[in-house]
Amino acid sequence: MFIEKIKTEGLAHLSYLIGADGQAAVIDPRRDCEVYVERAAARGSQITHIFETHRNEDLISGAPRLSQMTGAPVCHGPAPEAPVAYARTVREGEHFSLGSLRITVLETPGHTDDSLSFAVYDADFGQEAVAVFTGDALFVGDVGRTDFYPRRAEEVAGLLYDSLGKILALGDQAILYPAHGAGSVCGNNMAAREFSTLGYERLNNPMLRVENREDFVARKLAEHHYQPPYFALMERLNSDGAATPPASLPPPPLDIAESKRLMQSARLVDVRGIAAFLGAHLPGSFALPDSMISGFAGWFFRPDEDLLLVADDAAQAGAAARQLARIGFDRVVGYVKPALPVWAAGGEAFSALPVVGVAEVARRVADRPNGWALLDVRGRSEVETGIVAGAQTIYLGELPDHLDRLDRRRHYTVMCASGVRSTVAASLLRRAGFDQVDVFLGSMAAWRRAGQDIVQPRL
Amino acid sequence: MFIEKIKTEGLAHLSYLIGADGQAAVIDPRRDCEVYVERAAARGSQITHIFETHRNEDLISGAPRLSQMTGAPVCHGPAPEAPVAYARTVREGEHFSLGSLRITVLETPGHTDDSLSFAVYDADFGQEAVAVFTGDALFVGDVGRTDFYPRRAEEVAGLLYDSLGKILALGDQAILYPAHGAGSVCGNNMAAREFSTLGYERLNNPMLRVENREDFVARKLAEHHYQPPYFALMERLNSDGAATPPASLPPPPLDIAESKRLMQSARLVDVRGIAAFLGAHLPGSFALPDSMISGFAGWFFRPDEDLLLVADDAAQAGAAARQLARIGFDRVVGYVKPALPVWAAGGEAFSALPVVGVAEVARRVADRPNGWALLDVRGRSEVETGIVAGAQTIYLGELPDHLDRLDRRRHYTVMCASGVRSTVAASLLRRAGFDQVDVFLGSMAAWRRAGQDIVQPRL
Amino acid sequence: MFIEKIKTEGLAHLSYLIGADGQAAVIDPRRDCEVYVERAAARGSQITHIFETHRNEDLISGAPRLSQMTGAPVCHGPAPEAPVAYARTVREGEHFSLGSLRITVLETPGHTDDSLSFAVYDADFGQEAVAVFTGDALFVGDVGRTDFYPRRAEEVAGLLYDSLGKILALGDQAILYPAHGAGSVCGNNMAAREFSTLGYERLNNPMLRVENREDFVARKLAEHHYQPPYFALMERLNSDGAATPPASLPPPPLDIAESKRLMQSARLVDVRGIAAFLGAHLPGSFALPDSMISGFAGWFFRPDEDLLLVADDAAQAGAAARQLARIGFDRVVGYVKPALPVWAAGGEAFSALPVVGVAEVARRVADRPNGWALLDVRGRSEVETGIVAGAQTIYLGELPDHLDRLDRRRHYTVMCASGVRSTVAASLLRRAGFDQVDVFLGSMAAWRRAGQDIVQPRL
Amino acid sequence: MFIEKIKTEGLAHLSYLIGADGQAAVIDPRRDCEVYVERAAARGSQITHIFETHRNEDLISGAPRLSQMTGAPVCHGPAPEAPVAYARTVREGEHFSLGSLRITVLETPGHTDDSLSFAVYDADFGQEAVAVFTGDALFVGDVGRTDFYPRRAEEVAGLLYDSLGKILALGDQAILYPAHGAGSVCGNNMAAREFSTLGYERLNNPMLRVENREDFVARKLAEHHYQPPYFALMERLNSDGAATPPASLPPPPLDIAESKRLMQSARLVDVRGIAAFLGAHLPGSFALPDSMISGFAGWFFRPDEDLLLVADDAAQAGAAARQLARIGFDRVVGYVKPALPVWAAGGEAFSALPVVGVAEVARRVADRPNGWALLDVRGRSEVETGIVAGAQTIYLGELPDHLDRLDRRRHYTVMCASGVRSTVAASLLRRAGFDQVDVFLGSMAAWRRAGQDIVQPRL
Repeated sequence: MFIEKIKTEGLAHLSYLIGADGQAAVIDPRRDCEVYVERAAARGSQITHIFETHRNEDLISGAPRLSQMTGAPVCHGPAPEAPVAYARTVREGEHFSLGSLRITVLETPGHTDDSLSFAVYDADFGQEAVAVFTGDALFVGDVGRTDFYPRRAEEVAGLLYDSLGKILALGDQAILYPAHGAGSVCGNNMAAREFSTLGYERLNNPMLRVENREDFVARKLAEHHYQPPYFALMERLNSDGAATPPASLPPPPLDIAESKRLMQSARLVDVRGIAAFLGAHLPGSFALPDSMISGFAGWFFRPDEDLLLVADDAAQAGAAARQLARIGFDRVVGYVKPALPVWAAGGEAFSALPVVGVAEVARRVADRPNGWALLDVRGRSEVETGIVAGAQTIYLGELPDHLDRLDRRRHYTVMCASGVRSTVAASLLRRAGFDQVDVFLGSMAAWRRAGQDIVQPRL
Repeated sequence: MFIEKIKTEGLAHLSYLIGADGQAAVIDPRRDCEVYVERAAARGSQITHIFETHRNEDLISGAPRLSQMTGAPVCHGPAPEAPVAYARTVREGEHFSLGSLRITVLETPGHTDDSLSFAVYDADFGQEAVAVFTGDALFVGDVGRTDFYPRRAEEVAGLLYDSLGKILALGDQAILYPAHGAGSVCGNNMAAREFSTLGYERLNNPMLRVENREDFVARKLAEHHYQPPYFALMERLNSDGAATPPASLPPPPLDIAESKRLMQSARLVDVRGIAAFLGAHLPGSFALPDSMISGFAGWFFRPDEDLLLVADDAAQAGAAARQLARIGFDRVVGYVKPALPVWAAGGEAFSALPVVGVAEVARRVADRPNGWALLDVRGRSEVETGIVAGAQTIYLGELPDHLDRLDRRRHYTVMCASGVRSTVAASLLRRAGFDQVDVFLGSMAAWRRAGQDIVQPRL
Repeated sequence: MFIEKIKTEGLAHLSYLIGADGQAAVIDPRRDCEVYVERAAARGSQITHIFETHRNEDLISGAPRLSQMTGAPVCHGPAPEAPVAYARTVREGEHFSLGSLRITVLETPGHTDDSLSFAVYDADFGQEAVAVFTGDALFVGDVGRTDFYPRRAEEVAGLLYDSLGKILALGDQAILYPAHGAGSVCGNNMAAREFSTLGYERLNNPMLRVENREDFVARKLAEHHYQPPYFALMERLNSDGAATPPASLPPPPLDIAESKRLMQSARLVDVRGIAAFLGAHLPGSFALPDSMISGFAGWFFRPDEDLLLVADDAAQAGAAARQLARIGFDRVVGYVKPALPVWAAGGEAFSALPVVGVAEVARRVADRPNGWALLDVRGRSEVETGIVAGAQTIYLGELPDHLDRLDRRRHYTVMCASGVRSTVAASLLRRAGFDQVDVFLGSMAAWRRAGQDIVQPRL
Repeated sequence: MFIEKIKTEGLAHLSYLIGADGQAAVIDPRRDCEVYVERAAARGSQITHIFETHRNEDLISGAPRLSQMTGAPVCHGPAPEAPVAYARTVREGEHFSLGSLRITVLETPGHTDDSLSFAVYDADFGQEAVAVFTGDALFVGDVGRTDFYPRRAEEVAGLLYDSLGKILALGDQAILYPAHGAGSVCGNNMAAREFSTLGYERLNNPMLRVENREDFVARKLAEHHYQPPYFALMERLNSDGAATPPASLPPPPLDIAESKRLMQSARLVDVRGIAAFLGAHLPGSFALPDSMISGFAGWFFRPDEDLLLVADDAAQAGAAARQLARIGFDRVVGYVKPALPVWAAGGEAFSALPVVGVAEVARRVADRPNGWALLDVRGRSEVETGIVAGAQTIYLGELPDHLDRLDRRRHYTVMCASGVRSTVAASLLRRAGFDQVDVFLGSMAAWRRAGQDIVQPRL
């Protein structure tokens, strides 16, 4: 009887293979789902069941495709508004056997109406649940967001409170297996710890230590979460069943001539590291390193746009293409491998972005040189903890739609928490015709550490 | 904050990599310990601590070598009789920090005098232990054996009882990480389940549900465990620090001529599957497929003997050599790849072992043909559940030393639980000059399933 | 400028990736063609051309699929009778550039009417061909078979002679890259050497050292080659373009109950090693180890039959399924992992095949025991080198259609060259209701080595 | 009978595994020689011979270690001055058999006194050599350098001429397998083509098309080659036998605190890509990306210095450490993974290097701004093809010893052929206290392509 976690970095998505006696089930498979077949094969197990804890809004489910590949049926919760085309609906109390392992359904709405949890029992050994898959209801250190039904905000927060009670009733001994870990957009305050139990969460999870239902609902209503535009597409695809993803093969490398031809119609997406982008990049490219793809591709691109990657090598391009496909961006037409010196040696144009540190930013903040401005692209909850005096704040995800709040004649220094998102933002500005842009490397973290002043934003 | 389990099949040995914030510790590393360095590297973590729960008797510890490779110190419990040369002694209540992760020492003697458990805390998040490494004190579904100090049997069983109490006091919420899983020689009744918590064990582990200390001690004293001869070597090596193992490279393939030369001095060990051995094998070879190496190599061979493997390919030979090295058998001189047809085509001799099924064995048991005997090589606890009438019982591990209890002029049908150990036993008999040997495929399981009579052995 | 050989064992098929300056071409891709995309990616090269030397009859071409995956066009020779749907026709003298590499087309009919060779030039460095891809026209040590147009046998043998002259005219310095190596059914006498040049072949290839065209044609007409029934399907698929193959994922492992259900309708194909089959196997199964799949699956099965594999593990099952798919057998429904002892322990039936050696066979040949017969399943060219006196000869491939030449009441000992094909044959006999069958391990090779008499067959 | 090339990028070193009938030989193994054992195992072959074509001066031989690992003896040519401790000396005409493969020794001095070539014959099939391993005597498109015996320059050039004649006498049909490919420091003009034959080279290799011996010697004497300081160490180690290299495991990742401590004593070597270094780097670090390690580590570091790497991840650090170990730099103490934003966020200092393009450089060349200078770090043979007017030329390898020719008060723009070596040079200048340094991205290639003026250097 085994449980194996398959973690998808970037999305911080957690899926699971669970099995016993030659049978196995997959919980919340991601779109590139060969991994489940391979892991099951390595354990000599046949995948006989697929369970979804809810209709994901932040990634494409692999359930319909895995079902085709294995013949295993997909079990999904009751979805009043948009029944899931590829699944059969399961309900509170239904149970399934995989060898000596028993899985029982709990309806745990709140995050979404169709949310299920799955309790795991060992038929040979004890009566209590030994583990529970909680989807986006309960995380390590946090609970699911409840902002997807804005007109029913109070109602669904209360539903989640009740669902959490139902989960905790399984007992302290149950191991917790949620659908996301720290870094996911599905919760703000998850712990970095990758393992926990209901007992541990009951004692320590701040959202499980509230006074009562009212307190819980009040806290949920006070939270703020961003909803990237691509969520709407995910919801549709995860009701209808998404198309087969592109083969998980490296995208073709393109030479300079072909790249230049494709740049006419495609978005140029530089997935190299931040420092490489700062050092030299192709004019007009988006900076979107590996760690930023899941969080921001869905704000910047449309699924029907061709994407032309800039990558160090086939492996990096392939990893980026896989990440993009997981959230519905299938049109990667190839990649350019821009040893920038080679590119430059061929007579092609290049750009660079200057960096500045705390001392220089502090000097500018003090001197307020003419035409200079500081742009802070952190999110609302970060901004609320304080800003550099005079900084203008626009969240990175919303920047493409708010460029009209900026002035192309000014010189912008862009900052965030450390320097990564600000580089992404700087690339957006440069694309949009802002000539004078630099990046505050170290950003707010370095600013704080240097003991510089922080002020409260006017919100 | 992550915990990663590294499982060694065969030995059913569980070791762990645990870490946070770029630092990592290894619990109970095995001898071929490159895996820990590689896994830590993949997580961008530096190994800064090595913890041993006790001096292992069933495998060679990788702690001294991993310490050399990484510079990390080894922490070991107080070992009154044989201090561990390569480790520093740690005591109840000492604690260690790896980033935000805190590890605290519990002295939990019983299985051995030096047994420690390590409780894991999250400094950022809660006061209770979130997990515990219990070594061979507490398993999933069982507790450690207490037969290593025969003159202090009652005392150490009681010590273990007390230690278990100390562990359980950490709370139901703690996840359990033991040093062995089902299939280990370190316990008879472990659950096949690979995950549990203190809460779940408190409710369901039979040895934690005893009436009281006396009851616990009585049960432990009634248990029977085998001690293979190689345990003594393991104890010595795990006090002094074992030599570097042979490089984990495939052993060299040898041609027929060189193999025949080496067979003069080396043990010929056939590590192919059971069926292949039955079908055709080299005369004089031991049948010892992958699944039998950890359990029986230590009964049949001495560490100073050369071993010449018979394997289907380099991968199978390499896997066998690694398993052998983990328990101290380093002298694998190479392997023969005996496509038996090719071997036979070269004019070389070969043997085969006939198989028989329930019907034929039942007929023989009824008819008692002249000179025929049934040999059952299962272990004591299995034999106690019943035997086929008239069967002679000798445990497979002890067979080499008890061949004088058998008669080379008789025809032996060998049985066990299914047919694997009986094939190993049949190979021993053939090597020892028994001409008429066959294997009861299906053995006791098939016998029972066919509704045949079972009798109690005279012990 | 690189050339990389991709060898497909079993079929002994050789395909190539050739490239320069970021562009690459594939010569004769096999059906599971991800490998070419991955290798090209590893070299940072884009596949821009696909070349086929001819319409293969022994395997499914990957050209149409690779073309879809990469956008690269397929170039094929003129095919008068059956134009290739997915390719454009190229002709003598056309040339293609990949960076500084130049490829020129030679029409080299004989093996097939559409056969091409491709000469490789280095535009930067010299005028002569530096290499040549010869398809099935010229091999290392042999030339292509010319038996595919029985009514034009003499004509096409002469065409091949002329084509070889055209190839040799490229000069001694050209490296030879053929489409098959030793072990292929596309030639009988290929050298085991995997590298050669036109110069070396001109001096040493027996078929290039004939007196003249007449001598060459006479020799070709005297050759005998088998044509397995599946060749007809390959020809059709390689004109029309075959379907996408099953995903190259391991087939699902099936438990005993499901396996037994599927055995009702599916062929049971045991792909474990020969010795394992001899030792114990499921009744009714075909013995077809890895090395026999390419040679004999096409004689025994129809593409519309379900195949249920018997394999040691997922890797072995997956490798077999890939081999089967390469020659058009896509309907692998899963695999059973029959730890035969486990199977037997479950009360299921099993069989075994006894083996005999030279001494026993010699005794039987001398004594001619009543009802005993010796069956030799080697091919015609082997049989012509001599047989054991009294042996009946039926080629293994043709055995299923000639079982009426055998007598179910007799006891058959089956032989071949070594014991592999005879085990396959024995499995066919057992399936067909022959009760008394054993296998002569070592077969003709051991017989010769033992100095036993050999006689000429009556053909 | 197979030949498999093992290419070591960076060094452009080619070694080979050749074998037949279960035996194999390795030609010119590199120091990290596990690869040969693994490849041989994959082919079911035992390594029985190790051949060295000569004492390498540009890399550490793996022959002594591979000999220890496999028991195979090392065969080396006669080395009058420094006999090779770990090898036995073989001489003209000796031959060795590996199954049906025969290898014959040719003494081919010139590059070094001990240079051998090894001709390969197929005992089953023809009398002529089918291939030849030529070491550093004959390359694809070039011949070996002859500058290692400065006082015997004319003599050894003549010896090489004679040796090449002996090699060519093997016949046009022989495939050529040299010890280096394009990019090696062992020759200036090797073709990028990775395959050739003696026939092709006879017709096209410029050094084989000289008029006569005198012409050949004159051309060799006119060549210029650099000899990095580490060559002397390589020569000594390859006579005595080098120590076992560090385990090929990833170096430990170090946190900021430990890195800063180690930076006191260790060289800080940034092995990330060029663009990343330009964008942001740790003050005081050498820029030495993957492609520059083999060429320049031997100029900048001493083998007894600790090296602390800056790398994107464990894989990059590990690859760099392996490259360093191949040329004798074993003291890699760990690596820092400087997500520069994180580093900066921690309040640590960072630097960046500005880049300039053709237009800016042309402007400066025209305006000659006060205190500005252009530094060209290409090698002599490149410089001889022309420079930018006014550029000062110092070869990158020699830059550390010639910093006194530069003026710390000036502003330097550094150029090379494309921008890679100039970034390395710029990092040296910054380390040495030059404050105003920028890099001409595109360098001479972009300059030429833009049609800018080029002048002849005064040498």
